[in-house]
Amino acid sequence: MTSKVIQTDIEGLRESLKSIETDSLVIIVDLNVQNIYSKALNLLNIEDKKVTLWKSPPGENAKNFEEYKRCVEFVIEKGIHRKSHIVAIGGGATSDFAGFVAATVLRGVSWSVVPTTLLSMIDASIGGKVGINSQFGKNLIGNFHLPENIFVASEFLSTLPDDEYQSGLGELLKYCYLDSNIGNKLKTTEDQRQLIEDCMKYKRDVVEHDLKESGLRKVLNFGHTFGHAIEKIYDLKHGVAVVWGIVLILKLYGQEKHLKSMREYCQLLELKLDLPPWYNKTFQTDEIMNYLQKDKKASSSSKVDLVIFNSKNEIVIEPKTFDEIREDLANNADELRTFRLNQN
Amino acid sequence: MTSKVIQTDIEGLRESLKSIETDSLVIIVDLNVQNIYSKALNLLNIEDKKVTLWKSPPGENAKNFEEYKRCVEFVIEKGIHRKSHIVAIGGGATSDFAGFVAATVLRGVSWSVVPTTLLSMIDASIGGKVGINSQFGKNLIGNFHLPENIFVASEFLSTLPDDEYQSGLGELLKYCYLDSNIGNKLKTTEDQRQLIEDCMKYKRDVVEHDLKESGLRKVLNFGHTFGHAIEKIYDLKHGVAVVWGIVLILKLYGQEKHLKSMREYCQLLELKLDLPPWYNKTFQTDEIMNYLQKDKKASSSSKVDLVIFNSKNEIVIEPKTFDEIREDLANNADELRTFRLNQN
Repeated sequence: MTSKVIQTDIEGLRESLKSIETDSLVIIVDLNVQNIYSKALNLLNIEDKKVTLWKSPPGENAKNFEEYKRCVEFVIEKGIHRKSHIVAIGGGATSDFAGFVAATVLRGVSWSVVPTTLLSMIDASIGGKVGINSQFGKNLIGNFHLPENIFVASEFLSTLPDDEYQSGLGELLKYCYLDSNIGNKLKTTEDQRQLIEDCMKYKRDVVEHDLKESGLRKVLNFGHTFGHAIEKIYDLKHGVAVVWGIVLILKLYGQEKHLKSMREYCQLLELKLDLPPWYNKTFQTDEIMNYLQKDKKASSSSKVDLVIFNSKNEIVIEPKTFDEIREDLANNADELRTFRLNQN
Repeated sequence: MTSKVIQTDIEGLRESLKSIETDSLVIIVDLNVQNIYSKALNLLNIEDKKVTLWKSPPGENAKNFEEYKRCVEFVIEKGIHRKSHIVAIGGGATSDFAGFVAATVLRGVSWSVVPTTLLSMIDASIGGKVGINSQFGKNLIGNFHLPENIFVASEFLSTLPDDEYQSGLGELLKYCYLDSNIGNKLKTTEDQRQLIEDCMKYKRDVVEHDLKESGLRKVLNFGHTFGHAIEKIYDLKHGVAVVWGIVLILKLYGQEKHLKSMREYCQLLELKLDLPPWYNKTFQTDEIMNYLQKDKKASSSSKVDLVIFNSKNEIVIEPKTFDEIREDLANNADELRTFRLNQN
């Protein structure tokens, strides 16, 4: 069970959507994308299809209960049926949201994704994790619902704001740790398209073996358990928070050499990071621990699975008690306070 | 993939819940059931488990977005984790609701059902259809999420209000048409427990072959496509509306002899029905058609799958256009207006 990846361009997209077997397309598009590309996409005019269009507020703003309710009632009112097909066009927030609508309206209809951000191309669009946010954390309400197709048009990246692009690079950096081929390729190629394809392929392979994250798939959470907490507490972009999440993991449970690779990867990717958000401030152990205990990665009332390097230099999943983690953070608080990436 | 059915009694229920492998039970209980049985159930006191209790408004009142949001945020705040287990105690509305929470909180946690109504024992608790209501119709938002266990304690039926019991009998009547063994057994036994077990077994067998209702499972919708519309328009109990839904199907597409069986089944079940809700009034074709076109059974913008008897007396699934159905209803409007069950 896997999604088809189809390389296309913005002009070819309408033809791709036309080829989907349905008489009814429900397109959920990020408002910014629609504003920039409405003429080129011309979404309302797809031959032989009834098209229902929902413009989604940009970014995480869409991923709440109220917006979910509004969108679901809208598509039902417009006559969505079991063989309708939902298409998400936008970044990860849009596809998380649209995928959750697809997973739950009429108990699930098929869907496809058109990722328009780097982060979404290499991460959110793949693997069927869909959902909305709780007041207590990101993506705590959701489902697994694989998209049928992922239509990749890298042209979209040309209008991506710089901070969004940097966020994508942060997630790309994660893959350099997980797959040494990607790490090595980064050192030898300047073809970022190729790197994007490699990351997509890596993630699809992992997801194909473990859709529901009962084992292997957990490695994709490398940097994410702390990362989600950091993202929320310091209001950072996702991929950037993941980088700082990896830094925390490596400082607490890693080895120096992996921190050295971090600097190299950042340079090669032109990812401009140096000072962590907690630099020269009190490290917010309590806030991070509060967040962790609400995180859906928690595997019991007292433990969470962390993805770390073991002593043999392998990536492994290790359940840690909240008490252990709190202690490890407290013991490193002073050092973390003064740590900066480029002085490492 | 199927659910375990465990016969138990109210006293044994805590022992059954204790045996579930988890350190954290989230119990979603119908408020009426909790009021009647709180002492006997003693839910907060289950050895070695943290118990989180959510009291759900009785009946369909719980199955809306706002209540869903409140409950999900509550269980997250209380520290639900991936290996927590949700237990629904109540009728079909409670288990639909609790199952949808289970399907979507943290992208899905395991769950079990304790059905306390006849309708829920023979229908809602089996088969993993879970969901909440849209303003445009019942169960239009949902998922498929099989419960691990169904704990059946028929003692609960002793405090079931009569109209709820009648509603369950309406659904039981449906099985008499689907499985002639059940229809025949009804004529020879007075042991309603045995009939309940037979209905459960029939439904579990069907669901095991077709969880996602791509084919075979659709037969379970016999009487339901019209039934849901009738339930909403005339504000009837579900099972009673299903009986009138079956009547409509048999009047429009059936044969006289099946209407005769209906009278016999009603007598044997002591199901007190005679006048349909539209008796002596204008038959509300438009309202029914509006509802049908929003129903999730619609398989395209112009068709819906109806479950009917064919000329060989077999139950079959037949896609009908909305135009055909409207015409069939209009052609029968006069006859429907004066039809009564006991004069047939």
